[in-house]
Amino acid sequence: MSRSAPSIHDLMTDLGERARAASRHMARAGTADKDRALLALAAILREQRAALQQANELDVAAARQGGLQPAFVDRLLLGDKVLEQMAASCEQVAALADPVGEMTDLRRRPSGITVGRMRVPLGVFGMIFESRPNVTIEAASLAIKSGNAVILRGGSEAIHSNRALAGHVRQALRQAGLPEDAVQLVPVTDRAAVGELIAMPRYVDVIIPRGGKGLIERISAEARVPVIKHLDGNCHVYVDHPVDLDMAVAVTDNAKTQRYSPCNAAESLLVAEASEARFLPLIGAVFAAKGVEMRCCPRSLARLGGVPQAAPLLREASDEDWSTEYLAPIISIKVVADVDAAIAHINRYGSQHTDTIVTTDHQHAMRFLREVDSAAVMINASTRFSDGFEFGLGAEIGISTDKFHARGPVGLEGLTSQKWVVLGDGQLRR
Amino acid sequence: MSRSAPSIHDLMTDLGERARAASRHMARAGTADKDRALLALAAILREQRAALQQANELDVAAARQGGLQPAFVDRLLLGDKVLEQMAASCEQVAALADPVGEMTDLRRRPSGITVGRMRVPLGVFGMIFESRPNVTIEAASLAIKSGNAVILRGGSEAIHSNRALAGHVRQALRQAGLPEDAVQLVPVTDRAAVGELIAMPRYVDVIIPRGGKGLIERISAEARVPVIKHLDGNCHVYVDHPVDLDMAVAVTDNAKTQRYSPCNAAESLLVAEASEARFLPLIGAVFAAKGVEMRCCPRSLARLGGVPQAAPLLREASDEDWSTEYLAPIISIKVVADVDAAIAHINRYGSQHTDTIVTTDHQHAMRFLREVDSAAVMINASTRFSDGFEFGLGAEIGISTDKFHARGPVGLEGLTSQKWVVLGDGQLRR
Repeated sequence: MSRSAPSIHDLMTDLGERARAASRHMARAGTADKDRALLALAAILREQRAALQQANELDVAAARQGGLQPAFVDRLLLGDKVLEQMAASCEQVAALADPVGEMTDLRRRPSGITVGRMRVPLGVFGMIFESRPNVTIEAASLAIKSGNAVILRGGSEAIHSNRALAGHVRQALRQAGLPEDAVQLVPVTDRAAVGELIAMPRYVDVIIPRGGKGLIERISAEARVPVIKHLDGNCHVYVDHPVDLDMAVAVTDNAKTQRYSPCNAAESLLVAEASEARFLPLIGAVFAAKGVEMRCCPRSLARLGGVPQAAPLLREASDEDWSTEYLAPIISIKVVADVDAAIAHINRYGSQHTDTIVTTDHQHAMRFLREVDSAAVMINASTRFSDGFEFGLGAEIGISTDKFHARGPVGLEGLTSQKWVVLGDGQLRR
Repeated sequence: MSRSAPSIHDLMTDLGERARAASRHMARAGTADKDRALLALAAILREQRAALQQANELDVAAARQGGLQPAFVDRLLLGDKVLEQMAASCEQVAALADPVGEMTDLRRRPSGITVGRMRVPLGVFGMIFESRPNVTIEAASLAIKSGNAVILRGGSEAIHSNRALAGHVRQALRQAGLPEDAVQLVPVTDRAAVGELIAMPRYVDVIIPRGGKGLIERISAEARVPVIKHLDGNCHVYVDHPVDLDMAVAVTDNAKTQRYSPCNAAESLLVAEASEARFLPLIGAVFAAKGVEMRCCPRSLARLGGVPQAAPLLREASDEDWSTEYLAPIISIKVVADVDAAIAHINRYGSQHTDTIVTTDHQHAMRFLREVDSAAVMINASTRFSDGFEFGLGAEIGISTDKFHARGPVGLEGLTSQKWVVLGDGQLRR
C-alpha cells in the first residue's frame, strides 16, 4: 500500500476532488431529496435485476474458474433474495430520521448567548471492503442519508458487480437532483489505489475498512486519516454466582451457537468458582450435543471430564486461547474466583467488543457494567444482540472496537459530527 | 521525534505501564474521592506557595540568562495571582458534575433488551505542552475528574516548576487514596521522550498537544494514536445585508480588538456588497483609531481610502492573507457578493475554528449556521465567545479543529467516550 505511479495518484486525486465538491452539496441537501434518491435506487435495483445478475455472473464465473472456495463464491452471489434485501434496505434507510441539522442542548449562558450543538456530516469517507458486493449499496445508502460523499473500494473479485451497482446509485442520485459524485467507485483494481485513498487528508475525512484483521491492521498502520476500525470480536460470557442456572445455560448457548461466524458470537466462557460444579455439567452437555470443542483450564477440564459425550471435544487451553477469536464451534472455558477476577480477565484478554454477565446479584451486575472496558457491556443478555439493528440504529456500517469517536455498532450518527452553534443578538466578550 | 535509545524507551514504557494500571483504578474511583483529591491539591498549592515560587525561580532565572523574550518569561512566571488562580481552578473542577457513569438514551427494544450508553473515561492521555507551567495543574485536574490517567510532557524551560507541581498533584492523589501514577510527569527533557510518548498505543489512548503549529503538525504526522489537535484559528466575521450597522461595528470590533492573541480573535472580515458603502467607513475609523493594520481587497481598499487616519494602516491583501492567522493588530478585509460567497470563502480559506455572521435576515443566518463547516458557528455574536468557559463546559483542555471525536472547546466530556450498555433478563437472539 505504498505510494503509487503518477497515473494512479492522479486518478485518486481526481476522485478525491470530486468527492470533496460533492460532499459540500450533500451537506446542504434536503431530507426529501436524499430520500428520493434512496427510493429511486430501490426501484432501479428491482428493475435492473436481470442486468445486475448478468454482471455478477462475470465475477462468479471468474471466482469459480479461479478455484475459490464455495463459501467465498456464495458471498459474491447476487441472487434474487440478496437483491431484494438490498432494495428493501434502501427503503429502510429512507425511512430513518435524518441526523443532519439536528440541534441539541441549546442553553442560555450568563453572557446572553445561546449555545448548543448541531449535527453535521463528516464530509467524505472511504470504504474499503472485500468480496460482498452488497456493501456497495449499504455504504452508498448510508452516505446519502447522512449527507456525506463516499469513495468505494471493493475487492477485485467483485469489480463487475460493484461497477454495475455503483452506476445505478449514481443514476438514482441524478434522478433526485443530487451530485452523482457523492458516490464513486475506484474504477481500477490496482492495490496502489488503496495506498492513495488512505493518505489523502485533504479529500478524505475517515476510512472505514471491512475485511480481515490483516487488512484492517495494515490500513490502520498506514492511514493518514482516522480509521473506524473493527478488529477482533473476542466476546465473553461470565456466569456469576449467584445465578439463574437455566438462564445461564440459555444465554451461553445462544451467545456461542446461534451462529458461529459473527463477530458478536461468544468465544470465551468464564465461570465463578461457586457456580462451576452445577453449571459446567449443564453447558458441557449442550456443547457436546452440538459438537462444540471446549478448550479448558485445568479445573474446568476436570469437571467437564465427567460429562458423557464431552470427552472427544475437550482440550487443555493454552494461554493463546484466552485471546483467540475462533469464529467456529470452539470455545475457551475458565473457572475464575469471582466477578473481580472475571472483569480483570476480560480487560486483559478481551478485544473490547462485547461481553456479558449472567447474574442475579445487582452489585455484581453494576460493577461488571461499569468496569468492563468494552464497546458493549451486557447484563443477562446474549452477546449476539450487539449489532446496529438490534440496538435500534436502523442500519450499520460497521462495529468499532476503538474508543474514539464511534464505539460499537456505527450507524448514521457515527458518520456525523457535532459542531457548536451560538445564537446571539449582538453579544460582546467582556 | 524518532525512536530513541533503549534507556528512554524503557523509561517511557515504564511510565506507560504505570499509567495504564492507574487508569483502571481511576476509572472506577468514586466522585467523592476524586473531588477530595482536587480540594487537597488546591490546599497544597496555597500552602506550598513559597516553595513553588523557589522552584519556579530556577526556571525564570535560566530563561532570563538564556536571553529569552520578556513575554516568554512572563508565561513561565508563577506569581501569587497565577498560583491562586490555579488553586481556585481545582476547586471549580471539583464542583463540576462527574461525567463518568452517566447513562443516557436507555430505550426498550422489541427483543425485550434495554439499550443505552454509559460515559466512561478514555483511559490514558498524553499532554504535550510548552512553557506555561499552569497547564500541569489544568491537565492533572481534568484527568482526575474525568477518571483518566495522564502523562505530562512540559517544556524543558519549565522543568523545575513542573516537577514541583506534579509532586504536589501526586501527594493530593495519595491523600485521597487514589493512585499517584494517575498523574506522571516525564522526568527528562530529552526530545526523544516525545517520540516514544506518541507511539505507545498500548499505553496511551490519545495525545493532546498544546503549542505552536509546527509542534502540532509534527506530532500529528508521527503519532500512532489519535491526536486532539488545535491548529489555526483563522476566524471570520461576515457582515451581511440587511444588517444592524451598530451591532456589526460592535461585534467586529470586539472580535478583532478585545484581545489580539487568542485563537478565537477574528483575523478576517467579509462584507456584503450591499453593506460595504455604509459599514466600511464606520469600522475603518474604529480600526484606524486602534492602530489595526487593514489588508484589503481592491474594493475595500478604495472605500477605506476615504477614511481619515486610515491611510497609513492600509495594505493591499495578497492571496496568502485570506488564510493567515495574525494574532496581532492586523485584519484582512474583503467585499463579497452575498451570503453564498461568504460561506464559500470561509469554507475555502478558513481553518474550521470559529466564524460568525452579523445579519437581520433569518434565512441568511440559518444558512450560515448550517453551511459553514467550522467547529463553532455563530449568529450575531463575537467569535471571542468560543471557549470552554463561555460555552459552559466549566473547564477546557484545548480547542479541537478536527471533526472527529471532540470538536471545538474540549472539556471533561471530550476526555470520555460512551460505551453501549444492555440490560436484559435472559433475552436470546432469534
